Amino acid sequence: MSISFILEHKDGNARCGRIETSHETILTPVFMPVGTAATVKSLPHEWLEDPLDAKIILANTYHLYLRPGVEVIEEQEGLHRFMAWDRAILTDSGGYQVFSHREIRHITEDGVNFRSHLDGSRHFLSPERAMQIQWQLGSDIAMVFDECTPFPVSHCEAKQSMERSMRWAERCGKETADRDQAVFGIVQGGMFSDLREQSLEMLIDMQLEGIALGGFSVGEPRQMMYDLVNEMKGILPVEKPRYLMGVGTPLDILNCVEMGVDMFDCVLPTRNARNGTLFTWEGKVQIKNAIHKSDSRPLDSKCGCPVCRRYSRSYLRHLFVSGEILSATLLTLHNLYFYKELMGEIRRSILEKRFLEFKNGFMEHYSS
Amino acid sequence: MSISFILEHKDGNARCGRIETSHETILTPVFMPVGTAATVKSLPHEWLEDPLDAKIILANTYHLYLRPGVEVIEEQEGLHRFMAWDRAILTDSGGYQVFSHREIRHITEDGVNFRSHLDGSRHFLSPERAMQIQWQLGSDIAMVFDECTPFPVSHCEAKQSMERSMRWAERCGKETADRDQAVFGIVQGGMFSDLREQSLEMLIDMQLEGIALGGFSVGEPRQMMYDLVNEMKGILPVEKPRYLMGVGTPLDILNCVEMGVDMFDCVLPTRNARNGTLFTWEGKVQIKNAIHKSDSRPLDSKCGCPVCRRYSRSYLRHLFVSGEILSATLLTLHNLYFYKELMGEIRRSILEKRFLEFKNGFMEHYSS
Repeated sequence: MSISFILEHKDGNARCGRIETSHETILTPVFMPVGTAATVKSLPHEWLEDPLDAKIILANTYHLYLRPGVEVIEEQEGLHRFMAWDRAILTDSGGYQVFSHREIRHITEDGVNFRSHLDGSRHFLSPERAMQIQWQLGSDIAMVFDECTPFPVSHCEAKQSMERSMRWAERCGKETADRDQAVFGIVQGGMFSDLREQSLEMLIDMQLEGIALGGFSVGEPRQMMYDLVNEMKGILPVEKPRYLMGVGTPLDILNCVEMGVDMFDCVLPTRNARNGTLFTWEGKVQIKNAIHKSDSRPLDSKCGCPVCRRYSRSYLRHLFVSGEILSATLLTLHNLYFYKELMGEIRRSILEKRFLEFKNGFMEHYSS
Repeated sequence: MSISFILEHKDGNARCGRIETSHETILTPVFMPVGTAATVKSLPHEWLEDPLDAKIILANTYHLYLRPGVEVIEEQEGLHRFMAWDRAILTDSGGYQVFSHREIRHITEDGVNFRSHLDGSRHFLSPERAMQIQWQLGSDIAMVFDECTPFPVSHCEAKQSMERSMRWAERCGKETADRDQAVFGIVQGGMFSDLREQSLEMLIDMQLEGIALGGFSVGEPRQMMYDLVNEMKGILPVEKPRYLMGVGTPLDILNCVEMGVDMFDCVLPTRNARNGTLFTWEGKVQIKNAIHKSDSRPLDSKCGCPVCRRYSRSYLRHLFVSGEILSATLLTLHNLYFYKELMGEIRRSILEKRFLEFKNGFMEHYSS
């Protein structure tokens, strides 16, 4: 156990708190930028620190295990030193990525045989191996290795899958018992609330440091996720951080903060930036649209990020349309700044007991 | 006339001076990073300013004319405001790019009809039009529109081409006579020193603000360029800045500074960075080589750039091999920092009358 969570304020079910790790104190609710291959794509660490002030980022075990290889990172004394990032890091277990490549993996009770999407080489991940790798990476928070239940599946299939995930979570807990690394369990159970409740009960018994809600963003209707999170909000342990994996849009975050979620990660702001979709306080902007061609205004007049303070829509559109690398860098900075500001506003509004008011105001500009 | 050149020191033929423009004072010898499409590829302006302290960058008229279009930039009150860069800018005339696309252009005495490499649309550039566009861009230094003589050509062809370029330079001078924008003439004449001398004499009569040496980097042997620059060093006007276009390697720069050249530009440090070839004070490094896989040392232990102060070769190799955008950004920063430091050392060594000593020391690590 190497983190502690302090719950500080509540406004309805929405919570403000802080997670203390040996590298950094993280204010929650928090959005964690995704740094898949030990880089938040296109963004210098320098900007992640200032002005984004990211206290924690996510890195992907699957990608780093395959490239550069966990031995390389271990030789550099772990991921923090390897990537020159001395703030907190959460690693996923690699499970999601392994299960995403359906045609190149084979699952047994022991673990998963799979082939690298890079070179076709054969590999094996088990609960123990996944935790071992995350320990070698040296992340502040490691995730249990679980089976990602596809959507849609029958209740019977979802139950079998969840139960295997819980057996695997148990093995992960045993593997990591003596390590100074926080481990989060992951609630599975497909889209069935009874299964998710059973999953949560089993995880609570394992006494892991945090509870994640997994298995979403697999193609299910948005409302189905909201309903399931809502059904869990009363039974999630109060004293542990709650992490909704792979979510989401600004509205997803607001809706799920309202139901008591503390942590989020998603490729949306970074991937959208590279595709030219920008978040602003007045709604989304597609920078490639011809309407911006000669627009000397900033992307978002309400935004204080370095991109909005310096560059015009006209110039940003030119960079994007020209396929210039700088486009990805600047637009990523803007989108992550928007998310940072959003999380700050969320925390302030919870503190001041006006979260719903803030959320309703925000929804005038965002319907998804 | 909107610039002035002050020659301050000499060491042999090597010169130290400064160019005053309305935007910035430029210490010479200077290397100008290339910002083809109004961006030095992959590099945020913020880093061009600090730590690179670039006082002047080059932008390409041809590229900007086609995209976003000169009207777009003119609506933003010129290139400085469009790209949010308030230091000096030099624009080329577009000639080099137009002539590079042999299959899609047609030359007459009046100018050049050509097709866009982007969409095949038809365009026409003449000396007058090229200067008009550069005026609309609002660069601090504009270049005359000239014919880029191919290599190899006969003396007769080179002479005809040079003479046309000089007639065009004359037209450029007339077109820009009343404008508050510096214009540099370009010496042509292929690889024939008598023609280059004639070209220079004609340009001197035109009383433009600077003299560029053009028509190199077209496939000629390196020594041929050195010989031609060497033959001109005694007859170039002392009081005007001398700009060797499109050159070059660190050694090219040292050799040509030795012969009295003041200004350089080249895509080499930026393009090389994107291709993983790095300049260090102990020679070139190919970052993709397996030898760097677990190397925790900086790229260059003698370099003070933010990349060398923070990141290991191991991490930089990982980013490069993974095709991560951040690789281009960090490696470009390093290579341009190397060039900046090189130019700083060159200026100091001229000031301290030990230029040749510096050059000879440098050549222990670089043979090209």
